[in-house]
Amino acid sequence: MAKPKKSPRPKAETPKGFRDYFGAEVTQRAEMLSKIAGVYHRYGFDALESSGVETVEALGKFLPDVDRPNEGVFAWQEDADADKPGDWLALRYDLTAPLARVYAQHQNDLPKPYRRYAMGPVWRNEKPGPGRFRQFYQCDADTVGAPSVAADAEICAMLADCLEEVGIERGDYIVRVNNRKVLNGVLEAIGIDHILDADRREEVRGIVLRAIDKFDRLGWEGVRDLLGRGRKDSSGDYTEGANLNSEAIQTVRKAFFSSGASEELKAKAIEYANGTDYQTLTVEDKVVLYNLYDVLRDTISGVEAVVELGDFLRLCRSAGYGPDRIVIDPSVVRGLGYYTGPVFEAELTFDIQDEKGRTRNFGSVAGGGRYDDLVKRFTGQAVPATGVSIGVDRLLAALDAKGRLDKAADGPVVVTVMDKDRMADYQAMVAELRQEGIRAEVYLGNPKNFGNQLKYADKRHSPVAVIQGGDEHANGMVQIKDLIEGAKLAENATLEEWKDRPSQYKVPRDQLIAKVREILDLHR
Amino acid sequence: MAKPKKSPRPKAETPKGFRDYFGAEVTQRAEMLSKIAGVYHRYGFDALESSGVETVEALGKFLPDVDRPNEGVFAWQEDADADKPGDWLALRYDLTAPLARVYAQHQNDLPKPYRRYAMGPVWRNEKPGPGRFRQFYQCDADTVGAPSVAADAEICAMLADCLEEVGIERGDYIVRVNNRKVLNGVLEAIGIDHILDADRREEVRGIVLRAIDKFDRLGWEGVRDLLGRGRKDSSGDYTEGANLNSEAIQTVRKAFFSSGASEELKAKAIEYANGTDYQTLTVEDKVVLYNLYDVLRDTISGVEAVVELGDFLRLCRSAGYGPDRIVIDPSVVRGLGYYTGPVFEAELTFDIQDEKGRTRNFGSVAGGGRYDDLVKRFTGQAVPATGVSIGVDRLLAALDAKGRLDKAADGPVVVTVMDKDRMADYQAMVAELRQEGIRAEVYLGNPKNFGNQLKYADKRHSPVAVIQGGDEHANGMVQIKDLIEGAKLAENATLEEWKDRPSQYKVPRDQLIAKVREILDLHR
Repeated sequence: MAKPKKSPRPKAETPKGFRDYFGAEVTQRAEMLSKIAGVYHRYGFDALESSGVETVEALGKFLPDVDRPNEGVFAWQEDADADKPGDWLALRYDLTAPLARVYAQHQNDLPKPYRRYAMGPVWRNEKPGPGRFRQFYQCDADTVGAPSVAADAEICAMLADCLEEVGIERGDYIVRVNNRKVLNGVLEAIGIDHILDADRREEVRGIVLRAIDKFDRLGWEGVRDLLGRGRKDSSGDYTEGANLNSEAIQTVRKAFFSSGASEELKAKAIEYANGTDYQTLTVEDKVVLYNLYDVLRDTISGVEAVVELGDFLRLCRSAGYGPDRIVIDPSVVRGLGYYTGPVFEAELTFDIQDEKGRTRNFGSVAGGGRYDDLVKRFTGQAVPATGVSIGVDRLLAALDAKGRLDKAADGPVVVTVMDKDRMADYQAMVAELRQEGIRAEVYLGNPKNFGNQLKYADKRHSPVAVIQGGDEHANGMVQIKDLIEGAKLAENATLEEWKDRPSQYKVPRDQLIAKVREILDLHR
Repeated sequence: MAKPKKSPRPKAETPKGFRDYFGAEVTQRAEMLSKIAGVYHRYGFDALESSGVETVEALGKFLPDVDRPNEGVFAWQEDADADKPGDWLALRYDLTAPLARVYAQHQNDLPKPYRRYAMGPVWRNEKPGPGRFRQFYQCDADTVGAPSVAADAEICAMLADCLEEVGIERGDYIVRVNNRKVLNGVLEAIGIDHILDADRREEVRGIVLRAIDKFDRLGWEGVRDLLGRGRKDSSGDYTEGANLNSEAIQTVRKAFFSSGASEELKAKAIEYANGTDYQTLTVEDKVVLYNLYDVLRDTISGVEAVVELGDFLRLCRSAGYGPDRIVIDPSVVRGLGYYTGPVFEAELTFDIQDEKGRTRNFGSVAGGGRYDDLVKRFTGQAVPATGVSIGVDRLLAALDAKGRLDKAADGPVVVTVMDKDRMADYQAMVAELRQEGIRAEVYLGNPKNFGNQLKYADKRHSPVAVIQGGDEHANGMVQIKDLIEGAKLAENATLEEWKDRPSQYKVPRDQLIAKVREILDLHR
C-alpha cells in the first residue's frame, strides 16, 4: 500500500513587504498615536474609524478595461450571488478616500463643517524596499466643508502642537506653508498659459513643476538648466528643458527661491503692509508677501495667493504661532496634482547621522493641504476640504535618532522557581507585586536548570530577580537580586567594589515589596 | 457626434457587513484596549503587532482541491512573477494563527516561555447578520512554551483583573474553569472509548459533546433525551440520540451538572482533601473536586483532570483569587475541538434588558484555554500554549447596558463668528482655550446665519458658546452662553426661574477662560 504523501510544512514567513512589530515598537507607536489623538480632540476633531476594507468602486481605483483592479491596491472579488457577480473589494490605501466615502454616505448626520481624525493601518500593493512596507500607519485630521483659510491655519497650528506634544521641541521643527495659487500665478506670469497647443502647454507646465520640485536635490543651477535648455546629469543622461527665456527663469527664481531681503525691499514691504491688515505680521512675513506680490501682481492667481497667504499668516500670528513655528516658503511643492490652495509640510530641522555616519537633515514628517474635490465623485457636489497627515513611523524614527524615546528597560521582575511544589507561594509573590503596580512574573519554563531562569530574566531585561529556596522559606526570608547593578559590577567592578556593593539582598518575606520598590526607584 | 457616455457615480457605501465607528465609539474602545494592555503588561506580557495580511499557507486555510481558498477568509492571489505563480494572501481571521507563525518564525529571538499580547482587527468572510460584522476587534494574551497549569491560572487571574480594570465590578462577573480532560474522562467512564467501530465511536462522541453543549438552551431534560433515545423539538423535528443507557446518562449528569452538595458529600470531600495539598481550598472547591474524583476515579483522563483542576485552584486561591472571581464549573465546554487542557470563560452575571424589554443574562465576554499544537504545523514540534481572548465589543455593550460608559457630552466650546473680518480675534480665543486644555473650536462654516452656528453647536453637544459682536468688542467684553443650562431651562423652567438663572453671561475679555472653566466645572 502506498504511503499517503505528506504535505510539506507551511513556511513561517510574513508575506513579502510586511513585518512584525515587537514590544516597545508597538507601545511607543500606540503612545504617540494617543498623544496626537489628544491634540486633535482638543481642537474639536472627532474620531472616525472605518474598516480596512472598502469597495473598489468607492475607492475609485477600478479600471474598467482590465479584469482586476489596477496595481497599487490589494483587491479581490467577492463570490457571485445567484443573480449578480460579486463586488470587488480592496484594502484602503489611505485614510482620505474612506473619508470621502463616509462624508458622502453620512452627510445628513454629520455636523458641517465636519472635523474628523483617523488613525490606522493602510495598505499599498507596491514593490517593497528597504524601510518601505506594504502596511503602514497613517494619522490624519481633516476639516470638510470649511472653505476659509481659517481652517488651514487651524490645521497648521494643530500640527505644530502635535509635534511638541510627542516630544519634538520648539526650534527642532518648522511648518512651511505655500499656496498652490503661487504656482499658478507664476505659470501665468511667464506666459505658459498663453501657449496655444494644449498638449504642449501641459508638457511645459509639467517640466517647470518637476524642475521646481528638484530644487532640494539639484540646487538653483540644476533647476535653472531644467527651466532653460535642459540638463545633463553626472551619468551623461540628458533631460529636456522647458526652454524658458532668461526673463521667465528670473521670475521663477524670484517667486520661489528668493532668500534674504535688501533694506530697500524691506522698506517697500513695510510700506506695502501699512496699507493693509498686515501690520501685526513680522518684517520677514511682510517681505515674503511683498516679494510675491511684486512678482505676481499682474496675475489673477498670484494676487489671490498673496491675499490667502496674508490672511493665513494673520490668523497664525494672532493665535500665537510665530515664525519659529510656521513660515511661508514658496518653494514647498508637495506633489503635482490634487491640492488646490494652501499646502504645508512639517520638517524636522535637526541633523541626524545616517546609517553611513553622514550628517543629514531629517526632513519632512507631515504634510497636507487644501483639496476641493473630495466628495464630488459621489455626489456631484464640490465640497471644500483641508487636512494633514502625520507620518508616525518617521516621527518615531526621528525621536529615536534624537535619543528621545524612552529606552529604559521595562522588563518585569522575575520570581524564580527553586521548588516546583511551592509554585503557589511564588504566584502569591507576583500577585502582591502586581497589586502594587509592579510589572512582575513567575518563571513558567522548566525550573530544573536555575541558570536558564537567570538567562531568561536577562533576555526579558528584568531589573530584579526574586529567589526563595527551601532555607529561605524555612526562615521566612527571600533573596532579592538587583540585576542592573549586578550587570554593571560584572562588567566593571574590582573585587573590592564587588564586596562593598552587594547586588543581592536577603530580606524578610514581608519586606519583599519594599525592597523591590527600593531597587526599582534606584534605577529609575 | 455621439456624446461620450458618462460613467455613473460610485455608490458611497461600506461593503456589506462592514461599518463605520464615530466619535465616542472609537475613543471608548481605544480607552478599553489601553486599560487591558496595561494589565497584560503588568503581568509581564509583551506587545506584538503583526500585519493584517498573512500568506494563506501560514494561516492554514487553503483547500488544495479548489481554485481559491475556502470560505471564511478574505483571500486573493498576488500577481505572478516571471518564474512562479503569485502567492495567495489573506486577511487574518484571528490573532492566534499569526502568533503561531510569529513564534515559528522568530523563535530563536523570543524569550521562552513567550508571553505576548495582541490587539487589533480581524476579518471573517461570513454572512453578516444583526450585530455581526465582518471586521471586529480581538484582544488576546497567550503564553507559549509553558506546560504547567500555573500558566493557565495566571491567565485566569489576569482576566479577572482586566474585567475590573475596565469597570466591571467584582461580583458582576465570574471566571468559570473546566478541563477538557473531564470530558475525556466521562467518555472513558461511560465506555464510549470501547466502541470498536471508529466511525461509530466518533459519531457517539460527537452526539454526547453536542448534547452537553446544549444544556443552557435545553436544560437537563433536553440533554437527557439527546443522551438517550433522541429528542423531538417544538417544531416536530427529531434529533437522533446517543442511545446511552440510564447508568451512563446519570454519570454524565453527575460529572457535569451536579449542583448543591449533601452534608454527606461535603464531609467526604473534606476528608478527601485532608490527604492532599488541597487544605487551603474552600469547602465548595473541595466538593467540586471530590465529586469529579468520585465519578471519574477509574479513568486515566479523569484523574489527570482532577489533579490539574486541584493545582489550578490552589494557585488561584493562594494568589488571592477567591470563589467570588474564579470557580470550577464542569459544564463549561467552549466548542468541541482545539483545546487540550484547562478551558475557561468569563461571564457577566448581571441581568440586562434586551431590545424587546426582556430580562436576560448578559453572558460570556471572554474565553480561552490550553491548546498544544500551536506551531507543530510549521516546525513539527509540539509547543504547549494557553491564552485568552477578550471580546471588547461585547464588553463595551455590557458597560453601556449597565450605564457605566461615560456618556457625558464631550463637545467642544464653540466660538461663534459674528464678524468674518475678525476671524483672527476668534482664533486667538480658541488658541487660549486650547492652551488651557479646554476642547474648543471656532465656527468654520458660512457665518452669515447665526442660527446655523447655534444649531451647529447643538449638533456638536457643545457645553458653551462664546459670542463677541461689534459692541462687545468695542467694550472689551465677551458673551458666554451656558448651552447645557440653557437647554434645561428651555425644557423645564418657568419664566421666573428663567429670569433668576440666566444662562448667558457678559464678562470682560480677559475673564474668558475663567468663566468658561467655571461653567464646565458646574456640569462636570
